[in-house]
Amino acid sequence: MINKLIDKIRKTNAPIVVGLDPMLNYVPKHIQDKAFAEYGETLEGAAEAIWQFNKGIVDATYDLIPAVKPQIAMYEQFGIPGLQAYKKTIDYCKSKDLVVIGDVKRGDIGSTSAAYAVGHLGKVQVGSKFYAGFDEDFATVNPYLGTDGVKPFVDVCKEENKGLFILVKTSNPSSGEFQDRIIDGRPLYEWVGEKVAQWGEDHMGNEYSYIGAVVGATYPEMGKVLRKIMPKTFILVPGYGAQGGKGADLVHFFNEDGLGAIVNSSRGIIAAYKQEKYASIGEQNYADASRKAVEDMAADISGALESR
Amino acid sequence: MINKLIDKIRKTNAPIVVGLDPMLNYVPKHIQDKAFAEYGETLEGAAEAIWQFNKGIVDATYDLIPAVKPQIAMYEQFGIPGLQAYKKTIDYCKSKDLVVIGDVKRGDIGSTSAAYAVGHLGKVQVGSKFYAGFDEDFATVNPYLGTDGVKPFVDVCKEENKGLFILVKTSNPSSGEFQDRIIDGRPLYEWVGEKVAQWGEDHMGNEYSYIGAVVGATYPEMGKVLRKIMPKTFILVPGYGAQGGKGADLVHFFNEDGLGAIVNSSRGIIAAYKQEKYASIGEQNYADASRKAVEDMAADISGALESR
Repeated sequence: MINKLIDKIRKTNAPIVVGLDPMLNYVPKHIQDKAFAEYGETLEGAAEAIWQFNKGIVDATYDLIPAVKPQIAMYEQFGIPGLQAYKKTIDYCKSKDLVVIGDVKRGDIGSTSAAYAVGHLGKVQVGSKFYAGFDEDFATVNPYLGTDGVKPFVDVCKEENKGLFILVKTSNPSSGEFQDRIIDGRPLYEWVGEKVAQWGEDHMGNEYSYIGAVVGATYPEMGKVLRKIMPKTFILVPGYGAQGGKGADLVHFFNEDGLGAIVNSSRGIIAAYKQEKYASIGEQNYADASRKAVEDMAADISGALESR
Repeated sequence: MINKLIDKIRKTNAPIVVGLDPMLNYVPKHIQDKAFAEYGETLEGAAEAIWQFNKGIVDATYDLIPAVKPQIAMYEQFGIPGLQAYKKTIDYCKSKDLVVIGDVKRGDIGSTSAAYAVGHLGKVQVGSKFYAGFDEDFATVNPYLGTDGVKPFVDVCKEENKGLFILVKTSNPSSGEFQDRIIDGRPLYEWVGEKVAQWGEDHMGNEYSYIGAVVGATYPEMGKVLRKIMPKTFILVPGYGAQGGKGADLVHFFNEDGLGAIVNSSRGIIAAYKQEKYASIGEQNYADASRKAVEDMAADISGALESR
């Protein structure tokens, strides 16, 4: 799956992930109205609204991008109907040949991590049959519990040719509270980065490992160091756009081969129609605004990579 | 909710949580057969089997215990039908007046943490209406992302009089990889424990904070130190029984008032019928074996607390 992701990045020339993190207030009024007319102001109505919203964005952008990253929390907040919309979104994106990164940030120990891994990336056994519960291509994982929390995910990835992005340094302001604390002269995130590189050696693709890392765009200097510590690790970089990251901040996350990083933008793309820059496109044509935002983001990143 | 938990611990004289973490191979054959006869060997069949299994255990133990802790991973592995069984289990336990701790170990940043908090502990707005997605009483939370990952959970807890248990020191063998690393002379878990105590000051119940901590039974010496660092924090202690913790190891997790900790056992109770000790009770009567295991666990812990 890391090989497929790299192929698609090369073909689209866009190391970009669209974060499908729909807040209900991003969904244009005409879509909400239609969903509520059919299902009422219910969890089912909300789930229908975010699914239709997603579908519009995917239809308008799938030829430009290699991957999407639905954030499961945004669906989980609507209970079971929300999670049904999450599953529908995954299946639809896969039918469009997009790589799907489930931003689930799961993490537990032993058999519990194995259950998450099986549910999101593998197949669960029921009697003599096997079923995939959610079936994303990649999942994000929290490393706080150590190797025996991560290993069951890696094992399932090896069976299924799937991958992970493990949190190393997150994009939020208080990520430093624990992640930046100095241990034997180096910050915790470097120690985690080293472990990610080690875990990744166990499951290599052609050029990069199936086991990637998450490092926030908001910390470019740390990205530079981590890029060196984890040379064969693909880095998923959140925090572009709305969280403050710019193309020029991102160059250090990439290797000399122009690969090694994939940059996520969520609100900046899916709610682009709300920005002054794209306002003339209009709420009805929200998906066209998203397409334009993807094109602008791809140009920003290519420009920064070319001029480094 | 922390006040209710404490009341119920006093009434039952059992600082015990039953971990409803059903693996399909824990479910007696007659229950699996019945579920598969009705729904086939499908995700729906598996979900029905684990729900019926849970119901039997809850019916047999609810008068002896204050709380249950369903581990969502064990349901999530069966996709949407599994999560429907999770929700059914929560609702049924609440109808029996049990306190429900959702072992979800979620954690993200800002609006994403807020979405998890709303989905599990609060109410989400849809148009002019509000709905509770999962509606647990407590949730477990991963602290790796720092204060702005945890704060949105605390905010929802304050609105809803609900609570959290935040991972501090987990029970697994490799929990030390990051959690035990020394920062300015003290291990990371102590720094996290201090933060938990701070976060908890913001949302106090009568005697203890609504914001609790998770500290594994397998690390009693660390429990002793953390008990002092977090005097007003309730500690959820996993790892009793199957993971190796014993009553005598647990005394340091409790305060002098006999409160301050609640001990989880999962496999040791829900799959008790598989242990030699309870084998004579028989697979058909698996729930009676669980009741006996709860009684034995309560006696083990009371005995240890009385003889300290």
